[in-house]
Parts: sequence; structure tokens; C-alpha cells
Amino acid sequence: MPDRSTRRRFLQLAGASAVACAASTRSRLSAAPAASVPYQLGMASYTLREFPVEQAIEMTKRLGLVRIALKDFHLKMDATSAQIADTVAKVKAAGLELYGGGVIYMKSEAQVDRAFEYAKAAGMKLIIGVPNYELLPYTNRKVQEYDLPVAIHNHGPDNPLFPTPQSAYERIASLDRRIGLCIDAGHTQRSGIDPSESAVKYADRLFDVHIKDVSAATAEGRTVEIGRGVIDIPKLLRTLKGINFRGTLALEYEKDAKDPLPGAAESIGYLRGVLATMA
Amino acid sequence: MPDRSTRRRFLQLAGASAVACAASTRSRLSAAPAASVPYQLGMASYTLREFPVEQAIEMTKRLGLVRIALKDFHLKMDATSAQIADTVAKVKAAGLELYGGGVIYMKSEAQVDRAFEYAKAAGMKLIIGVPNYELLPYTNRKVQEYDLPVAIHNHGPDNPLFPTPQSAYERIASLDRRIGLCIDAGHTQRSGIDPSESAVKYADRLFDVHIKDVSAATAEGRTVEIGRGVIDIPKLLRTLKGINFRGTLALEYEKDAKDPLPGAAESIGYLRGVLATMA
Repeated sequence: MPDRSTRRRFLQLAGASAVACAASTRSRLSAAPAASVPYQLGMASYTLREFPVEQAIEMTKRLGLVRIALKDFHLKMDATSAQIADTVAKVKAAGLELYGGGVIYMKSEAQVDRAFEYAKAAGMKLIIGVPNYELLPYTNRKVQEYDLPVAIHNHGPDNPLFPTPQSAYERIASLDRRIGLCIDAGHTQRSGIDPSESAVKYADRLFDVHIKDVSAATAEGRTVEIGRGVIDIPKLLRTLKGINFRGTLALEYEKDAKDPLPGAAESIGYLRGVLATMA
Repeated sequence: MPDRSTRRRFLQLAGASAVACAASTRSRLSAAPAASVPYQLGMASYTLREFPVEQAIEMTKRLGLVRIALKDFHLKMDATSAQIADTVAKVKAAGLELYGGGVIYMKSEAQVDRAFEYAKAAGMKLIIGVPNYELLPYTNRKVQEYDLPVAIHNHGPDNPLFPTPQSAYERIASLDRRIGLCIDAGHTQRSGIDPSESAVKYADRLFDVHIKDVSAATAEGRTVEIGRGVIDIPKLLRTLKGINFRGTLALEYEKDAKDPLPGAAESIGYLRGVLATMA
């Protein structure tokens, strides 16, 4: 059986893609270099919004995650180049991959410009964003100019701007294929829509998933520990495998803002438990 | 979809046995009053040994567990009747079931006597214990006198007293059937034995399981978050269902003694995730 250092070496060799399902390869590390699912687990740093970036990084590491998307709480939208470089260095030094930024709201062309400069300076591979509807053509040009994808994040029934994955897909279907979706599993379910169904429908443009669970499939639904809510999480994980989703399942745990680690840990554990059965 | 109060009502109606797999019945609460597995999740309070009983109770509740076995850190073996009653009242007031006590070491007849009086006074349904080998006949008489079962807890390769489930089973097989085993998944795996195999072999006398994961299947193995170690947890959960195990899977998370909640939560989440796929 592999010891801790063997395991660490394996994860380095196999690359980050092995981490999401590390649990499922536990006792078969040497025999199974390939991940059982094409996607990875990660952290949406909104979960850790009450903590400085250093602590957010430590918490993410403690959960055994290696991918993180930073929210502006942890890297201000008006950060200087030096500030951006400093935060990026901290993320890298911790062994994490800064795969994206968001959710970034864009309410003017200037804010679109700033978002792309910010993401480029930080080396992010993806902007998880919400541009105003009228800014989609402008955003489309920026995507082409920077060769930097944007995943439109949907909110729920209480927000008129992209309330559902469908509302986003319809508006981006004719745009550059580097504009896609970040399906928020919670807001989608709160709209009465099974996020698995959305994942299948919009598979060709699904870049990112905000994974969470909610207490009810209505506007009143609130984030709960994954597994304690109403979302069929095993179905969603199987569906994402089925559509060969290659992005990140980023945990956005909105509950317990001042003490999120236990609930975030329970949620990540639940995902790993389900994934372990999908090997 | 059921709201929180509907869910609470369901759990009360269905009884504690629904809790272990509450996750798996999430969105099917009204349709599925029966649990998908016959066993339940619980807390072995050794996990929370650095905290007073009040905090241990709160942490157990936060994890969504309703069953707890108290270690002497939380209810001293020499506690007075009044002290026992006070602690039992706190456990009950929190909505938890004090199903057992342990691990209780018994090195003399006087300590066996004390353990049975203690467990009886606290209304425990099970002693998770380690009597010295020569005290097994005496313990057997006490089991019959009190009609109170004892589950012999196995340690690992570094402890000569009950190092494996087999070493316990062989010594209790001819005794009263109310003497059985508490298989410690971690110590068993550390002895190079798959705990699933032990569960099958000793199914007729398996009363309790200390669930955990370990970093290696050798004496050097240490407790890690469930899912990050070498134990095949999905196999163990399926096996326990297969043998119709009706006891408790009590989390004994030995790591992070001073800050156990994140790792304990990740572990419980993992178990619930696996269970959700077994519905």
C-alpha cells in the first residue's frame, strides 16, 4: 500500500486531474494513473469570503483541493500589477492552481476591459462572469482579442440577470465558442430546474460548475452542506462524467460565512464519496 | 420538495435508523420512509477528546449525527450518579442518543463491575470494551446479569490485547451471544486485514464498527480523513449492508485532536456520499 510520499509523488506525476477522484483511487494508486472522471474539484473562494487570501489558501489546501477561482474579496478588481503578482505568487507557493476568477460582474465596457486585464495579469484561464446583457457583443470581442474564455454564471429566480442556464445559453449560443456557461447547481435547482438536465442540454458550452446543495427547489432554498439538500448530487456527478465535462466543480458553499470549513469539508467529502463509487 | 421542517418530521417518524442514509433519501423523503441501509452513522467521542462534553455534543449535532458513544473524557468512569445523570441529560436535551460507552478498558474484576454499573446508570445499550483476556469469563457473567451487550474493540499490530477482530472472535465465540465485536476499521487495516473480510467472517457477532481511514495498511498507518487513505470504504459500506449489520458506524477520527471538526466533517460527508449511491 502506498504511503503518503508515494501518494504525493503519484499526484504530481498524474497531474491535477487525478485529484478530483483521488479518493476513488485510494488503494489502487499505482495501478490507476488515470482519473475516473474527466473533471476536477476546486474551490470558489466566495466560500471563504470572510478570510484574507492567505487563510483562504490554507483552508483550500486543507480540503485537499488544488484548484481555486478567486473572488474579488481575495484579489480586488482594482488591484495593481504588483498586488496581483503578490497574490498569484502566494497561490502558486501553496501548490494551488489559480484556474479562474469570479464571479465578476461587468456593468460597463470599462468593467469588461478591467476584467480581461485583471484575468490576463493573474494568468487565469477562465473568467466566471456576469456581463450585462447589452455588453455581450463587447464581451465577445474581448474574448477573441484576449483568447480568454468567459463562463456566464447563472443566478436564480430572485435575480433577473441570467436567472437560469437556459437564459444564458440562448444569449451566447451564436457568439464565439469561447463564451460558455458556469452552471450554478444551487441557483438552477432553486429555479425548479434539475442542474443535471441543464448540464446535458448545454454540454457543448459548459465550462465550469458551481457545486453546492440547497434546502429547497424554490427561491426560498438556501445553501446547505452537500448531501443534506434536495439536489440529486450523485446524478449530477454521473451526468457530468457522461457528457465528458472537463472543467472544474468549484465548491461555492455560501452557508456559515464566518466558519465555513466544517460545512465545506463535509461537502467535499460527500463529493469524493460519490466519486469513489464511480471509478 | 420537502422543506427543513418536513425533513425533521420525517426523521422523527422514521426513527434514528433513517439518519445514516438521510443523504440518500434527500429528494425522496416522502416516498422512502425506509432507510437504504440497516445501520446508522454515529460519533465515537474519542474524536472530540480535547473538548468538554458540551462542545462534543454541539460538534456531533453540527455533523448531523444523532448517535454518540461517550469516551471517559466526556463521562468519567468514576463519575457519581448525579454526574452521570447530568451528562445524560445534556446528551438527551441535544436530541442525541447515548447508545454506548467506550472504549472502556477493564483490567480487574472491580473495573468490570464499575463498567457495567456506569453503563447501566447512563442507560447505555452497549459497552465497547477491552477486558483483559483472563477477565472474559467474569465479563460473560456480568453480561448475563445485566443483560447488557459488550462489543470487544480490536486494536492493531502495536497492541497485544485483541490486535485483530479474529483474536477477539476466537475468544468470545463460545461465550454468551451478547458478547460480540466492535471492529475498528483502521486498526484492522493496519494489521494488513481488509475490514470488509472481517465483517463478513464475524457478521454473527458484529455489534459496532469504529469507522475511519488510515494512511497505510501497516503498523505505521495513521488516521486520515475518510477517503484519503487506503481502506476501501465503499466496499466496507456495501459489505455491512450485505450482512445486514444493524449497529452503528461510529466515527473515530484520531487526527487533528485540537481541531477535529473539518476532518470529521469531511469523513462523515464521504460516508454519506457513498451511502447516497447505495439507495
